[in-house]
Amino acid sequence: MIYFDNGATTYPKPECVYQALDRANRNAFNSGRGSYKVARESTKLIDEVRRKIMTINDIDYANVIFTNSATSALNNLIFGIDIIEGDNIYISPFEHNSVIRPLEELKEKKNINIIIIPFLKDTWNVDIEKLKNMFALKKPKAVIISHISNVTGLILPYEIIFEESVKYKAINILDSSQGYGIVKIKDLKDINYIVFAGHKSLYGSFGIAGYIKLKQDILNKTIFGGTGSDTMNPKMLDKYPDGYEAGSPNIVAISSLKASLEWLEITRVYTHEKELTKYLIEKLKSIDKIHLYLPNDIEKILGIVSFNIDGYKSDEVGSILDDEFDICVRTGFHCSPLIHDFISSIDYGGTVRVSLGYFNTKKEIDDLINALKTL
Amino acid sequence: MIYFDNGATTYPKPECVYQALDRANRNAFNSGRGSYKVARESTKLIDEVRRKIMTINDIDYANVIFTNSATSALNNLIFGIDIIEGDNIYISPFEHNSVIRPLEELKEKKNINIIIIPFLKDTWNVDIEKLKNMFALKKPKAVIISHISNVTGLILPYEIIFEESVKYKAINILDSSQGYGIVKIKDLKDINYIVFAGHKSLYGSFGIAGYIKLKQDILNKTIFGGTGSDTMNPKMLDKYPDGYEAGSPNIVAISSLKASLEWLEITRVYTHEKELTKYLIEKLKSIDKIHLYLPNDIEKILGIVSFNIDGYKSDEVGSILDDEFDICVRTGFHCSPLIHDFISSIDYGGTVRVSLGYFNTKKEIDDLINALKTL
Repeated sequence: MIYFDNGATTYPKPECVYQALDRANRNAFNSGRGSYKVARESTKLIDEVRRKIMTINDIDYANVIFTNSATSALNNLIFGIDIIEGDNIYISPFEHNSVIRPLEELKEKKNINIIIIPFLKDTWNVDIEKLKNMFALKKPKAVIISHISNVTGLILPYEIIFEESVKYKAINILDSSQGYGIVKIKDLKDINYIVFAGHKSLYGSFGIAGYIKLKQDILNKTIFGGTGSDTMNPKMLDKYPDGYEAGSPNIVAISSLKASLEWLEITRVYTHEKELTKYLIEKLKSIDKIHLYLPNDIEKILGIVSFNIDGYKSDEVGSILDDEFDICVRTGFHCSPLIHDFISSIDYGGTVRVSLGYFNTKKEIDDLINALKTL
Repeated sequence: MIYFDNGATTYPKPECVYQALDRANRNAFNSGRGSYKVARESTKLIDEVRRKIMTINDIDYANVIFTNSATSALNNLIFGIDIIEGDNIYISPFEHNSVIRPLEELKEKKNINIIIIPFLKDTWNVDIEKLKNMFALKKPKAVIISHISNVTGLILPYEIIFEESVKYKAINILDSSQGYGIVKIKDLKDINYIVFAGHKSLYGSFGIAGYIKLKQDILNKTIFGGTGSDTMNPKMLDKYPDGYEAGSPNIVAISSLKASLEWLEITRVYTHEKELTKYLIEKLKSIDKIHLYLPNDIEKILGIVSFNIDGYKSDEVGSILDDEFDICVRTGFHCSPLIHDFISSIDYGGTVRVSLGYFNTKKEIDDLINALKTL
């Protein structure tokens, strides 16, 4: 089997991650809840992983809050911001339903405005002059941008956008589910929150994700329950991370992040993915009937490439690759509804998405290309 | 090390669970999102585990919704019920902060009444006549009861309470975090929702829990995001489970439940825990300076026993057991604030809690007793 669905979850994980998971499962105690050594050690491990999450992106000071998934992290952030009726929330056209669906709920409940940031069709750059005018007319309360598009692999120009929105004291949220740990995030001073997904770019297991809080603004709480501390208080504490995490922490999944972060520190994942991405695009371009969804400058693309083939719906291509060649790609809309209008892929029922990981090889790409040539 | 903190998380898990976890980690694909075989197989596995969760308690028809923790399940239920200002929510004095803290938030936001169900001091039975009067005066909108108290091990008389509240069409929620899979839940016809915790009585891994929806009432949605289906729709679907789960399912943790449920089907966990509980109580009773927190009839207690020792705070006992005897118990308030007033354990800083699991032995209990005798 050739696996090209690393955008859904990276596979395989490094061997050290599997070993860490097995060890952790066989020694999984509940952190912060017992008055015995192994429970206290679990608590220490969790704090260590919080620090590693920061240092992998050269973050000196922040709060790291764990959730079970990036979706939960985005829900906690979107429902945690102090939104009032009529607020303007800006998003890019590349956003995922984990951003759009919570916002649609807020729109229904609080009549907010969801405004799509204008992107240029050829360069896939933000139309910054137009956006500046939009911000001036409709002040941004929050701006939510993907770091890397899960459909097109575009590394978004979040710095340019946040540099403007920060002037309006907007809450700037970067959804780095597809990039954290692989592509360094710059201009941290303009960002309020970064979302990460343990089982994607961080090469850890399912069940762990979270957000990094870089600034002083305070979120409303959205999850309530036992924290192993201050039990007699019927309210959640007003401090980070305790007041924003409830229930037993997933110590096993957190242990997997310890191993994967150590692996990421010494592994050239970015370089390898970059090289594979270029190779994949070059090879796909050599097939005439393939429509690639790319900006002018392919340096902006990392790890994910979407395309379609004349005469086929995207899912037909996926089925043939699976059935006849044992090649796994994802097809369809990839939980990101807005981008298909921008790239004009709706008639194909979405795109065929090849998403690369550290363990993919050029040989596997060659096999994919040979398979596609038979269509 | 002797582990008596199975109420926090059962440890160890059956060997088959560790093996299932390792296999699942090494073959973890994202379910419902890929158009290839292994992704479809993940989806099938999840449905199979949903069915097993039902059949382990002889449930014929229900919806099983997965969450990452029982805390999340309770948050989704409590914030999902259609609560209006002035509604009366009844809870037992045995409830956990995963019930109390979400309700306190609702109280602040919607001015609900949180009403404590009266329990009798000697028998620990519900004072049903008094409760009937309370229901008549203040109609119950919802009733939330623990199946087994995480502090005292009491199997609560939920059937008697729900039989009354159902007459008022109350939403009846049973928090079976400490019992599901071990103690059969009866009178399902009166229950709307049952909460389960994968890593506790179900002997699975961290990161998986959920609720079973037994009746027709519809919850408001509380989590929004990608579901791998109907991407172009900005709203969550109006069906179960799709509309109530968002983000990548934790296929690894779900795989552990498949193994643990198969193990539970053929293992006499209840019988063993019952026998150990009786043995533990009998031995603890033989030590004069120990105050046990028990009802008249100890047949009502399963798996968890709380006590204190004259002249010691509960956490002092825990530290000595850990430091000098390598015995792990939990001490303090156990995230359940109300019960300590009922059993009068506040002056001790909570209780020393011994919580038993299938892998505990009488020999370990003897070692605990010998350690306690030195105090």
